[in-house]
Amino acid sequence: MPIPEGDDGTGAGRAAGLTLSRAAEATGGRVVGDGSFVVRRISTLRNGGPGDLAFLADRRYAGDLAGCQAGALLVSEALNGLEGGPRDRVVVKDARRALVALLGILHPPATRSWIRHPSAAIHPTATLPDQAAVGAGAVIGRGAVVGRRVRIGAHCVIGEGARIGAGAVLHPQVTLYPGVRLGRRVIVHAGSRIGVDGFGYIQEKGDHIRIPQVGGCIIEDDVEIGANCTIDRGSLGNTRIGKGAKLDNLVHLGHNVEIGARAMIVAQVGIAGSTRVGEGVALGGQAGLVGHLKIGAGARIGAQAGVISDIAPGQVVSGYPARDHRRYLRAMARLMRLSRLSARVGRLERRLAAAEPQREEGVQGG
Amino acid sequence: MPIPEGDDGTGAGRAAGLTLSRAAEATGGRVVGDGSFVVRRISTLRNGGPGDLAFLADRRYAGDLAGCQAGALLVSEALNGLEGGPRDRVVVKDARRALVALLGILHPPATRSWIRHPSAAIHPTATLPDQAAVGAGAVIGRGAVVGRRVRIGAHCVIGEGARIGAGAVLHPQVTLYPGVRLGRRVIVHAGSRIGVDGFGYIQEKGDHIRIPQVGGCIIEDDVEIGANCTIDRGSLGNTRIGKGAKLDNLVHLGHNVEIGARAMIVAQVGIAGSTRVGEGVALGGQAGLVGHLKIGAGARIGAQAGVISDIAPGQVVSGYPARDHRRYLRAMARLMRLSRLSARVGRLERRLAAAEPQREEGVQGG
Amino acid sequence: MPIPEGDDGTGAGRAAGLTLSRAAEATGGRVVGDGSFVVRRISTLRNGGPGDLAFLADRRYAGDLAGCQAGALLVSEALNGLEGGPRDRVVVKDARRALVALLGILHPPATRSWIRHPSAAIHPTATLPDQAAVGAGAVIGRGAVVGRRVRIGAHCVIGEGARIGAGAVLHPQVTLYPGVRLGRRVIVHAGSRIGVDGFGYIQEKGDHIRIPQVGGCIIEDDVEIGANCTIDRGSLGNTRIGKGAKLDNLVHLGHNVEIGARAMIVAQVGIAGSTRVGEGVALGGQAGLVGHLKIGAGARIGAQAGVISDIAPGQVVSGYPARDHRRYLRAMARLMRLSRLSARVGRLERRLAAAEPQREEGVQGG
Repeated sequence: MPIPEGDDGTGAGRAAGLTLSRAAEATGGRVVGDGSFVVRRISTLRNGGPGDLAFLADRRYAGDLAGCQAGALLVSEALNGLEGGPRDRVVVKDARRALVALLGILHPPATRSWIRHPSAAIHPTATLPDQAAVGAGAVIGRGAVVGRRVRIGAHCVIGEGARIGAGAVLHPQVTLYPGVRLGRRVIVHAGSRIGVDGFGYIQEKGDHIRIPQVGGCIIEDDVEIGANCTIDRGSLGNTRIGKGAKLDNLVHLGHNVEIGARAMIVAQVGIAGSTRVGEGVALGGQAGLVGHLKIGAGARIGAQAGVISDIAPGQVVSGYPARDHRRYLRAMARLMRLSRLSARVGRLERRLAAAEPQREEGVQGG
Repeated sequence: MPIPEGDDGTGAGRAAGLTLSRAAEATGGRVVGDGSFVVRRISTLRNGGPGDLAFLADRRYAGDLAGCQAGALLVSEALNGLEGGPRDRVVVKDARRALVALLGILHPPATRSWIRHPSAAIHPTATLPDQAAVGAGAVIGRGAVVGRRVRIGAHCVIGEGARIGAGAVLHPQVTLYPGVRLGRRVIVHAGSRIGVDGFGYIQEKGDHIRIPQVGGCIIEDDVEIGANCTIDRGSLGNTRIGKGAKLDNLVHLGHNVEIGARAMIVAQVGIAGSTRVGEGVALGGQAGLVGHLKIGAGARIGAQAGVISDIAPGQVVSGYPARDHRRYLRAMARLMRLSRLSARVGRLERRLAAAEPQREEGVQGG
Repeated sequence: MPIPEGDDGTGAGRAAGLTLSRAAEATGGRVVGDGSFVVRRISTLRNGGPGDLAFLADRRYAGDLAGCQAGALLVSEALNGLEGGPRDRVVVKDARRALVALLGILHPPATRSWIRHPSAAIHPTATLPDQAAVGAGAVIGRGAVVGRRVRIGAHCVIGEGARIGAGAVLHPQVTLYPGVRLGRRVIVHAGSRIGVDGFGYIQEKGDHIRIPQVGGCIIEDDVEIGANCTIDRGSLGNTRIGKGAKLDNLVHLGHNVEIGARAMIVAQVGIAGSTRVGEGVALGGQAGLVGHLKIGAGARIGAQAGVISDIAPGQVVSGYPARDHRRYLRAMARLMRLSRLSARVGRLERRLAAAEPQREEGVQGG
């Protein structure tokens, strides 16, 4: 096989360097000390070295200023008066926001050519613009439509008739089942499976007969999906993930699940079929939701919570079955002290038993 | 690479259309209205359009009949008298069963040729019938045996000596470790790993020394395995999934696990080594079973249940540690009211304290 | 595509046979009976056949000796006097340790040539020794460095600049994101994703803006990682798995997690960002740890435990929120008897109510 010079779909970027002056300019901040000092990396206060720009955005880490070995410091205005730390500085309003901006500059997306690796298998009926990258071994099925500036990683399999919006990035080994639709700028991490046939059967003489799963799977703009997730297609109708929602790794969504815009779903969450999750809902790691529920907008479901009934908008729940988070934690704390309550009841019984015979004697004696 | 016209292993099917007369014929039903009306899709009452056949199989959805926009209705005989909904109809005994039949007709399996994609790497000692499809980039190892009418998706890796029964379907990127056996008509979804070396070590001077995992992994006829599952091979002896069992996505089975025929295992369940699950057992999502247990036939394990001891046949359990489902839910409800019980005990203590001194005084005074 | 005679990366080994005499020699044991008897497989007492060496290392299985069909027996000295079982024997100090040694002999690692499959896409700037195997379709990115005697399975994708230590084994379809470092003799099972971008966002006008994830991911010597795991790279700084730690299947580690040497992490565990797990910690299946925790060396976290605060060294916990294991189980047992406690309180209330009016009457009567 010919070995290409260019992009092989392994997905790396390139790091550059910048001066403190340019860093201040990019973040609306000001330089203290040597503006020509060049930094190549951003670090924490603890792990910074001579060429690094350490950052301080939270007073809790101020204690790390003393031993900091970094060459320069990115610091929030409010924390700039604290003692210790590098003298050459960029002082900004909010060091955390500035950090994100500078990371984007120091680690720009790969500026590689829009190469199609010769080992990719692209169906002649697929639509693929000049400005799209296709990694080694990727397979693009019949009638698939790929948008501009899309990057398809090595060994991705794009099913028949699937559509990928402009600017989307698929890391290696992603599967899109036939007919799946990804919006613009969607990011899918390695090994996620989108549009899988859902878990639907009817019983017939004791056997499970598969209900054909013929619905769609729609991932809206700006969604990010972690690694090794499984998103089922609709049974009838669609599974849908709303604009800007973010999924961590190993998340499972059953058929016809609907995720509202900007929801945040942490790793290993599982959501059973037809459950609708409102806008901006946050689901903690390993939480599980049974099917056919409605989770109101802005609700927060704790890590490992097991939700078996609807949740009102804005509610905060945890535990199995999930309840109000604070009530649940208090109840569990009480549970751990249950032996004491039990002992108190035992004492009451003994005291009352000691009291009653007297009284009975008194009655008898009366 | 030459671009094939035919099957590239991305897995799509084709949709057709049918008349209400043919739909009635296929389901043992009768037509009301225009038997020549053509439908192309089955929909819910809510999302149906002019070319769709909506269905009503459950009285709870009767309220959706009024606004239904679908062109025609598939309805159970018992619900046919309800008001509203499309006039052109197929009336059947059980609309849900009829639905499955019609979905199979409207969305037939792909009728594509039995092509081997030229990029597949098939070992010369592997056995592969003419009637078998091999997707782009698939790898079939030394001595593997593939049955008739098998479909191997793009980028699957079939280990040395593995055997795949007639009519099986492997979606893209599945891994069969060496020696794995799949029965007839088995379906495996994208990214599942079957026959993985199990988690077995002995301690030696504080280090963990791997116990070679040399057992087999046998998946019987008509099993379906979801996406991104992990099924370990036996340590010694076999891991086995019984005939007709169904696994959802992201399920983990440890070494030497045995799953009975027709068991249903919902997404993200984990079963530790050597546990035996009886026939027809149902496991809810995210349930976990520790190793070396026996789960009796027909038992039902609730979502997120944590099972740490044997379960009798037919038992219904939930919670951690798993208990009788209804007792568990009642106990959790009581737990949430524990503050009230605690308050009652407090009142008793105060009342008794108030009573006792009087009595003591009485005694002293007596 | 040319079909190679040699290694295609499917990963099989070869089994051989050995005499009881050689088995005794290899395990420091002694032969009883026919030392020239050849065994080809090790089995349990139950599933052994005429050519098998069954083993008995635990008195609990002594009852299986009676019906054992195996040709020969590997038995611990202390259990050799028990009745029944094969007469031709290898008697050793510890049959479990001997078992591991003999499995290594009966199932030696594949002794195949160091072949690079012609369909692999190896970047010209990658470093690859003669003694390394690269499976079909594998992709090795720009500047990657592969050590001696490394085996890279079919369809693995090795990101730009990644480094793989000598003797490491990658099963099929593994992804190393750019810059990941694997130590010597690391084993990674099929479909695991290492160095994934972590789950980090800042809020900006209600949207989630990705924080570029620019840290590293370091897997130290002798680590084993199961199938379909997801290991995030550091946000800044590194994610790190310490020497000799073992991960089962479907484990998730968030960004900047640190796992101590020789930790054992069972299937489906999830650990959120920046949590540090000490040396030799054991985590049960499906356990979950929230972020920024410290788990002390030697702690044991039960299956399904939900850990939301630091755990002291050596502590044993379970439940959600995780507590001392024995206290938790006792509390749950008490919870299941809560109805009885409630009934006792009810009886106390009635008895006291019956007692109080009398007294009040007495008072009134006084």
